[in-house]
Amino acid sequence: MRAVDIIAAKRDGHAHSPAEIAWLIRGCVSGEIPDYQLSAWLMAAYLRGLDRSETAALTRAMAESGRVLDLGDLASSAVDKHSSGGVGDKTTLVATPIAAAAGVIVPKMSGRGLGFTGGTLDKLEAIPGLRVDLGVDRILAQAREVGLVIASQTADLAPADGKLYALRDVTATVDSLPLIVSSILSKKLAGGAPAFVLDVKAGHGAFMPTLARARELAQLLVDIGTECGRRVVAIISAMDQPLGWAVGNAVEVREAIETLRGGGPADLRDLAITLAGEMLQLAGRARSVAEAEQAARDALFSGRALERLGAMIRAQGGDERVLDEPDRLPTAPVQEVVRSDRNGFIAELDARQVGMTVTALGAGRERKGDPVDHRIGVVFHHKVGDRVDTGDPLFTLHLADPAQVAVARERLLAAYRWSSEPVPYPAVVLDRIG
Amino acid sequence: MRAVDIIAAKRDGHAHSPAEIAWLIRGCVSGEIPDYQLSAWLMAAYLRGLDRSETAALTRAMAESGRVLDLGDLASSAVDKHSSGGVGDKTTLVATPIAAAAGVIVPKMSGRGLGFTGGTLDKLEAIPGLRVDLGVDRILAQAREVGLVIASQTADLAPADGKLYALRDVTATVDSLPLIVSSILSKKLAGGAPAFVLDVKAGHGAFMPTLARARELAQLLVDIGTECGRRVVAIISAMDQPLGWAVGNAVEVREAIETLRGGGPADLRDLAITLAGEMLQLAGRARSVAEAEQAARDALFSGRALERLGAMIRAQGGDERVLDEPDRLPTAPVQEVVRSDRNGFIAELDARQVGMTVTALGAGRERKGDPVDHRIGVVFHHKVGDRVDTGDPLFTLHLADPAQVAVARERLLAAYRWSSEPVPYPAVVLDRIG
Repeated sequence: MRAVDIIAAKRDGHAHSPAEIAWLIRGCVSGEIPDYQLSAWLMAAYLRGLDRSETAALTRAMAESGRVLDLGDLASSAVDKHSSGGVGDKTTLVATPIAAAAGVIVPKMSGRGLGFTGGTLDKLEAIPGLRVDLGVDRILAQAREVGLVIASQTADLAPADGKLYALRDVTATVDSLPLIVSSILSKKLAGGAPAFVLDVKAGHGAFMPTLARARELAQLLVDIGTECGRRVVAIISAMDQPLGWAVGNAVEVREAIETLRGGGPADLRDLAITLAGEMLQLAGRARSVAEAEQAARDALFSGRALERLGAMIRAQGGDERVLDEPDRLPTAPVQEVVRSDRNGFIAELDARQVGMTVTALGAGRERKGDPVDHRIGVVFHHKVGDRVDTGDPLFTLHLADPAQVAVARERLLAAYRWSSEPVPYPAVVLDRIG
Repeated sequence: MRAVDIIAAKRDGHAHSPAEIAWLIRGCVSGEIPDYQLSAWLMAAYLRGLDRSETAALTRAMAESGRVLDLGDLASSAVDKHSSGGVGDKTTLVATPIAAAAGVIVPKMSGRGLGFTGGTLDKLEAIPGLRVDLGVDRILAQAREVGLVIASQTADLAPADGKLYALRDVTATVDSLPLIVSSILSKKLAGGAPAFVLDVKAGHGAFMPTLARARELAQLLVDIGTECGRRVVAIISAMDQPLGWAVGNAVEVREAIETLRGGGPADLRDLAITLAGEMLQLAGRARSVAEAEQAARDALFSGRALERLGAMIRAQGGDERVLDEPDRLPTAPVQEVVRSDRNGFIAELDARQVGMTVTALGAGRERKGDPVDHRIGVVFHHKVGDRVDTGDPLFTLHLADPAQVAVARERLLAAYRWSSEPVPYPAVVLDRIG
């Protein structure tokens, strides 16, 4: 085989055989196929598309490009969870302890935040002492002992994805459904779980801006995951406004703890229970949606889910006292309440605008490898559908420097659209595919 | 500007501004834009296309990416000539001496053969002692003194084209009309001539396999050349069968000399006179096609064109005695006449098959930089339209080794298609655009 012939075939809209795709991915990882050929192929694949069989072959080849975790006897109860990324999305910190408390083994590898979206690892690292770079042996041991582990992806898992993603990022080939799907699923496959629940976000603050696009992505994820021999369910959830009230790392961990204590925002709780319920069903711990959601509620409201999070924090070297004493989390020196200067109903609160603002303030990163300030963030007091009167607190800024207040306030106020008429409360769970 | 944004714009089918294209080409030459971004852009441009204004901007930017020859007071009489490449295409060796003998200044830079096509430089180097790497100063001096120079392109001319072409070659983005046109014309622009005649080949042995595709290429070459301020005419000529009788380096030089002596094959002579006539008109040396072709015939049949070729050979260090004593050209140790074992009319003689066979025998190169054996080749005794009887000589092989005879014979015989009915002689000049 020659790379130039494979590029030409895709350029002309022909379908690749699984053997061709496997050859391409081996050459990608070994370095025998240079970047300039890979990027020409990526652009051809972006514009000409990859069919289901090609996407499945690409997913498998990328999963097999490095180490594949062997969960052994844990596998039968193991369910992984993935979010397509959003603003204020601390769902993993709530849903996975619920699922673990109800008997699911959750060996999860997460990512970091980039651009306007946050990442679970950054949030977790707001907990003093907590480590996420565990290595395969500790991941397996902790999955066995605690039933819950959230770690960074090890470098030897799906290395082809890391390499291709870096190229896609600089060659305008990120936004391709088959490439997105194979990137997500190859890492899940390499993670070893035989089942996973995917939270596909739809809206301004998501990579899929419309419900139709999110459905398309979810359907392809389910189809290809199934074709690769996994049990897969996708939930489509709303990401027009931020999820919950808090956006930022420490403030989101605090909100996740509140939610595991039975409080917290309703949208976050509802979504976490839905996702945990799906995880329970996939693990065979419940026979119906109703039974699964009841078990998830029991795990949440009994406090067992919070205990499970505590056990995970302890196992990963973190200070579990944060569960009872949240002030042990990093705290911003400047906390400024911004109040409404108008009456009305909140019609929109643009999640992307919020995400970009909070990232720019230091809570997120523009480029890979940039540091994040865990203290920085915003906590909203009202969301879409709420009626607000002049003088009501709208949001509280958590900042490093008082000089940031004016810009942060102005940018966040620009994220609102107001209505004089009542606005319905939006649903958070929009659809289920699987 | 960011390369990723330019790639994304082309990916989405948007047109680039001239400033964006100039920026891209500057970054290409400086190395600031890495190959993997250039190749993603090339594939997007291949699949989405470039409009006329983008193609003209790309041509200009590539021409200006290095040195642009200043012909000074020679410019007003200077006309360049280019062939899109074929099999047995020694036309430059006949047409340019005719044009020069009739008063045109021909400062021509040529290329080498690759794959199934031959190259003028390889043919010229079959002449003992002749040098083609002259450098700009000698090119200008010889153009002034002899009126005719055929040299290799200097490295500082249109360096962006060299870099992009190398990438296109390995990323399956060669066969794109706008990229082909900008590659050809950028070198012509950098060569400094204000006018050029393009010989666009159509047929099995050409890059454009059909007349329609060749017309498309010719029209775009004329349009973009004109848009870049040059006077341009394109002739479309037949390349279904080899041009002339000889294919190979020394045998083609011998045939070019025969033609300049008034003999040689009719198709080569007709095409050379047509092209030289166009060059005369562009240089203002003739006011009509009839006048131009008459002047070209005069230059040819008077022997002045042959003298001019001799002056060029002398000026470039070659042994001009080859004009009178062609046995001074490299001669193959094995010369084997292959005779027909059937009666009939030759209906086809596949130029591509012939070109590939002769290349494989050592007369051409599969990869850039490979050496060529100037002695190797084939000379046909009959072509399409001829009636052949059993025992008539079909072709003479010129080989290095008797062991090659059987394979060469078999492969070349496979290039024929026969007819029991008379077959019309094909025209060589198919169309004129300009």
